[in-house]
Amino acid sequence: MGTSIGLEEVRQASARIRPLAHTTPVLSSRLFDAAAGVRTVFKCENFQRGGAFKVRGAANFVSLLDQEQRKRGVVAYSSGNHAQGVAIAAAEAGIPATIVMPKDAPKTKLEATRSYGPKIVFCDRLRESREEIAQSIARETGATILPPFDHPWVIAGQGTAALELLEEFRELDAIAVPLGGGGLLSGTLIVAKALRPQIRVFGVEPELANDWHQSLQAGKRIGIPPPETIADGLRTPMPGEIVFPIVRELVEGVLLVSEEEMKAAMRFLLTRMKTLAEPSGAAAAAAVLAKKLPADVRSVGVIVSGGNVDPGALSKILAEPAC
Amino acid sequence: MGTSIGLEEVRQASARIRPLAHTTPVLSSRLFDAAAGVRTVFKCENFQRGGAFKVRGAANFVSLLDQEQRKRGVVAYSSGNHAQGVAIAAAEAGIPATIVMPKDAPKTKLEATRSYGPKIVFCDRLRESREEIAQSIARETGATILPPFDHPWVIAGQGTAALELLEEFRELDAIAVPLGGGGLLSGTLIVAKALRPQIRVFGVEPELANDWHQSLQAGKRIGIPPPETIADGLRTPMPGEIVFPIVRELVEGVLLVSEEEMKAAMRFLLTRMKTLAEPSGAAAAAAVLAKKLPADVRSVGVIVSGGNVDPGALSKILAEPAC
Repeated sequence: MGTSIGLEEVRQASARIRPLAHTTPVLSSRLFDAAAGVRTVFKCENFQRGGAFKVRGAANFVSLLDQEQRKRGVVAYSSGNHAQGVAIAAAEAGIPATIVMPKDAPKTKLEATRSYGPKIVFCDRLRESREEIAQSIARETGATILPPFDHPWVIAGQGTAALELLEEFRELDAIAVPLGGGGLLSGTLIVAKALRPQIRVFGVEPELANDWHQSLQAGKRIGIPPPETIADGLRTPMPGEIVFPIVRELVEGVLLVSEEEMKAAMRFLLTRMKTLAEPSGAAAAAAVLAKKLPADVRSVGVIVSGGNVDPGALSKILAEPAC
Repeated sequence: MGTSIGLEEVRQASARIRPLAHTTPVLSSRLFDAAAGVRTVFKCENFQRGGAFKVRGAANFVSLLDQEQRKRGVVAYSSGNHAQGVAIAAAEAGIPATIVMPKDAPKTKLEATRSYGPKIVFCDRLRESREEIAQSIARETGATILPPFDHPWVIAGQGTAALELLEEFRELDAIAVPLGGGGLLSGTLIVAKALRPQIRVFGVEPELANDWHQSLQAGKRIGIPPPETIADGLRTPMPGEIVFPIVRELVEGVLLVSEEEMKAAMRFLLTRMKTLAEPSGAAAAAAVLAKKLPADVRSVGVIVSGGNVDPGALSKILAEPAC
């Protein structure tokens, strides 16, 4: 597989993060099934601590640091959900954390991150490299960079969501996963293909942030300009080095969704299923609702990856024509 | 107890409605616990079929009708959630249903009710008696009236939510329940006091619809003018005959919440916990969040009774100052 991460690493991660992360509930809806034409179960990571799956990877990473590393702490760069995940994992472990966040990160994500007590450093998303800022902080302080997706410990942690899902629903034909950096998708692929080789796993990315789609077509990692999609969690401009070969080998395909399709899925999840997904979190549901899965898929697990939305932004999306 | 409904009737109802109603998930939030100062678990009936607990009572009622009654069908009057519950229960049983709804019922509730296929008859909430319209339909058609709360079969069905909650969380000090007609509270009281005699059960009603508060103080059922609270599910103007003595004997007390407190709880549930409650559905959470429980309550089960809100109304509530 070109990587040393397998099902066993995900199982270990699952045991390791148990005291810290929720085993999230799975929802289903006959209304959604009827609208989408496929039996769907939703793994609700929007109910996860910090409002997104990210705490899984961060907690696994932190718990694998040695004593010296813990003392110096971690540094992370994130538009928000990874920031919260790292802040929670660091606070629970009692280690220092510095988070580099874009100035235009959603206010909800910023304030929630701040509430866990890390040091926050701002950057300009369109002009500065968050990675470089984080690296210079790491050099100065001796802190360990906790990468948002491209690290085996993070990937193994993110895979625990699919592990929980498949332990509960063994017979799924397919899984659909929002695709930003690729950490959640890689972890999901490793678990799903090990437990159920015939399962088909799809990544879902916004049409406006289609770096994975382009990269998989080209057979190599391709970068795009900073994407302007409302799905702020899926704005990473290029697949990572470690995740790319995992995804390329195991993924069934990448489905693209429009901004409108994500908003319509958000409205459906909220008004019919009473659960709040952020635009990124609703991306996989959007692909299923817009009938982008192959017609022979009879059952699908959808990961609702997060639910952190500013009330103002949500209010605007709700005011648009209902689905 | 002045009634023939006991734990055994609720257990039987639970078995009877199992194929039709969801066993709803229970959520918790460290953020809520910190804000409210009490360990809280949320029984999420907003995830129930039809978006509210009402299908429990309706399904139990329908399944107890005899063949002749089934043929003639049921008739119900409701501002929305009971309407959906009856429509689902009747559709699943394959029997005819007529629903009398106020013209100003939330659009979401009206459309959702309609989608299950019952006949809908409109009335003017402030001028006409829905009960009388339903009674005349029953006389004409031979249909059985399926009362919204004041019937032993309905009460037993509503009690199944608390039964599920207490089977999962046996050690709760208290339970808080939105209080409209009193069906959910009566069912909860019967279950909770039988399983755990020392538990304290609170009804929560809007300050603007305080008929229960007044009635319990007076020691007799008191009617109030049609209440104008945003909690459209809690607008019943008078306690029912059957539920009143059950509540009077067993309830610990009635807590009153303001319109603002319900909206603040809705915002907290939505933005922090990612779950959508309607104003009525958030009433019990509002009482806990506003610290209206006695200080010695260390753990409380809150029933989130429903989540049916019009997107427009929700959008307005979100736009107000965040909690």
